[in-house]
Amino acid sequence: MNDRPMSYLLTPGPLTTSARTREAMLRDWGSRDPDFIALTARVRKRLCALANAEATHTAVLLQGSGTYALDATVQTLVPKDGKLLVLVNGAYGRRMVEIARRIGRDVAFLEFAEDAPADPDITAAYLKSDPAVTHVAVVHCETTSGILNPIEAIGDAVARAGRKYFIDAMSSFGAISIDARKLTFEAMMAASGKCLEGVPGMSFVLANKAALAAAGGNALSISLDLTAQWQGFEKDGQWRFTPPTQVLAALDCAMDQLDEEGGVDARGARYARNCRVLREGMARLGFRSILFDNLQAPIIVTFHRPPGLEYETFGAALKERGFVIYPGKLTKLDTFRIGCIGAIDAKVMSAAVDAVAQTMREMKISL
Amino acid sequence: MNDRPMSYLLTPGPLTTSARTREAMLRDWGSRDPDFIALTARVRKRLCALANAEATHTAVLLQGSGTYALDATVQTLVPKDGKLLVLVNGAYGRRMVEIARRIGRDVAFLEFAEDAPADPDITAAYLKSDPAVTHVAVVHCETTSGILNPIEAIGDAVARAGRKYFIDAMSSFGAISIDARKLTFEAMMAASGKCLEGVPGMSFVLANKAALAAAGGNALSISLDLTAQWQGFEKDGQWRFTPPTQVLAALDCAMDQLDEEGGVDARGARYARNCRVLREGMARLGFRSILFDNLQAPIIVTFHRPPGLEYETFGAALKERGFVIYPGKLTKLDTFRIGCIGAIDAKVMSAAVDAVAQTMREMKISL
Repeated sequence: MNDRPMSYLLTPGPLTTSARTREAMLRDWGSRDPDFIALTARVRKRLCALANAEATHTAVLLQGSGTYALDATVQTLVPKDGKLLVLVNGAYGRRMVEIARRIGRDVAFLEFAEDAPADPDITAAYLKSDPAVTHVAVVHCETTSGILNPIEAIGDAVARAGRKYFIDAMSSFGAISIDARKLTFEAMMAASGKCLEGVPGMSFVLANKAALAAAGGNALSISLDLTAQWQGFEKDGQWRFTPPTQVLAALDCAMDQLDEEGGVDARGARYARNCRVLREGMARLGFRSILFDNLQAPIIVTFHRPPGLEYETFGAALKERGFVIYPGKLTKLDTFRIGCIGAIDAKVMSAAVDAVAQTMREMKISL
Repeated sequence: MNDRPMSYLLTPGPLTTSARTREAMLRDWGSRDPDFIALTARVRKRLCALANAEATHTAVLLQGSGTYALDATVQTLVPKDGKLLVLVNGAYGRRMVEIARRIGRDVAFLEFAEDAPADPDITAAYLKSDPAVTHVAVVHCETTSGILNPIEAIGDAVARAGRKYFIDAMSSFGAISIDARKLTFEAMMAASGKCLEGVPGMSFVLANKAALAAAGGNALSISLDLTAQWQGFEKDGQWRFTPPTQVLAALDCAMDQLDEEGGVDARGARYARNCRVLREGMARLGFRSILFDNLQAPIIVTFHRPPGLEYETFGAALKERGFVIYPGKLTKLDTFRIGCIGAIDAKVMSAAVDAVAQTMREMKISL
């Protein structure tokens, strides 16, 4: 066991969770027990409600990380003769292409600059040129840069072209409003350990019920068969395979706290404050973020790494001061990233900026 | 939140864990943090050591339930032109057949009675008759009945026939010794929430390193690609996709307790005591277990359901008394099951038998 005091995790996840959320894991649950079946049903219902999706969609919980939910969605909902178009402006878009290729689905992608949003007009033009495309996927907040993609405008283009729409909302769901009554999507994928502020260990898909019902037999493996997983929940309320019981209990407890905070808009507002304190504080220290303000999602901020600031030393020194940050992930620029999500507030962000300032002094770097 | 006192989970899992194991989840971990990388390495090493497999095998941790580990093993290690023979004497053997069929691998199975062990001689004869078979899989403890399959004798037959061997040790690993220096296997699959007494949420495969290295590109999806997952760990010590950080920390803490208990043999001895107290106590009440003593694994016991004992009422009454039991799973007999694994001792089993006795009196049933 490691007894160091905990650090704040200023990363794209896993994140800092509240003590209350972690304490929800101090109980054992039988997976077929009526209490656990009720817990499963409650979480599924709450997830749908967060996106106003109860009428059209169902929440399919899935054991494992968010990538599994993406993989399961593509292999279940894109039919074997379908074709997926992925809008790429970072590592997670590229990964979706890799997921589709590996399972043998036809896939095309449109690549945008990593510091520019995916473009609805280019998407519309591409869809006109390629009638084989049945589904379009985009990452809502691409944490490679921290950019927010315009999912509504892209959704309009996809709907006008009569194609289906997948939203990878891994890093946004719970903090940035997605309303299924206003935006048509076939599936939206996210996970327990991001803006819902649960612990990592499960993912989920809000999937259109009719699409799911029509997709039986598409998936390549029983593990990642979203239709079968859904049918399992509907049959007896149980997970097909052993569920991560404590992770689910933590997510339910975390969603209580989301409600108490005031819901998605209030959480988004807290993250926006965190983001502002971080960006303004870092700007005062001379750091430059890579994105224009209007493209920045309040999730994670990518900063140019100044010459002379060695990342390993910088990151390790911040860790010693109690803040875990992340290396950059952009292909063309030398950067590092600081997240502003999780059970943290503006005071924590302020303290993080102070820790950066102290570290800079220690490293004898001024910008 | 549900504030009922916890029940003892006398099931095939999830199980009752110790408070210390659950308390190991009261911390957040960054997945790229050196502390977490060290935790990952330590757990991988300990898992290999438990099977004396350090020289030949590597532990590939996998997000999600045990079924994922089975699925990943079959799709990664059975080549596309390979053929899997599954020895079936219960639901988990049948599931392995289903896993292989779904991913499109050629598969055959030998079906044995659910209350009889898989037979090494029949296996040997079959292998002689079907040279296409490349891999043989068996479930060590088939919790459908609670039977222990003779993995050593089957392993000898498989080795003599020059085939590769998979052991589904989901419900035995940590409690029944498996020694890679004495028994040749290509892969052994298990999970965090069974006899290791961690919480559910991750699984793992002890896979032969040479086999794993030769299996690149076999898997159908990136999520369940065991070779890629291994290469990820070897490259930088990190999980390819977000790990269930708290679940891993709980497993490490649970393995501390396994060591303190005296290792696999001591744990197996405790479970054997639990099993004896349960079987003897239930026999005194007039219940009959379905297996001969020499076939019974000290994991879970299947009892004939006496006429007049309605399972729903019986199970619910035991739950009220603090013990969760499981319905039967045999295809041909009407049964129920009571597990004897998890962080429980003979006193708990004794109390469970008392609760059964009280419930019988309440239900006015005597046998």
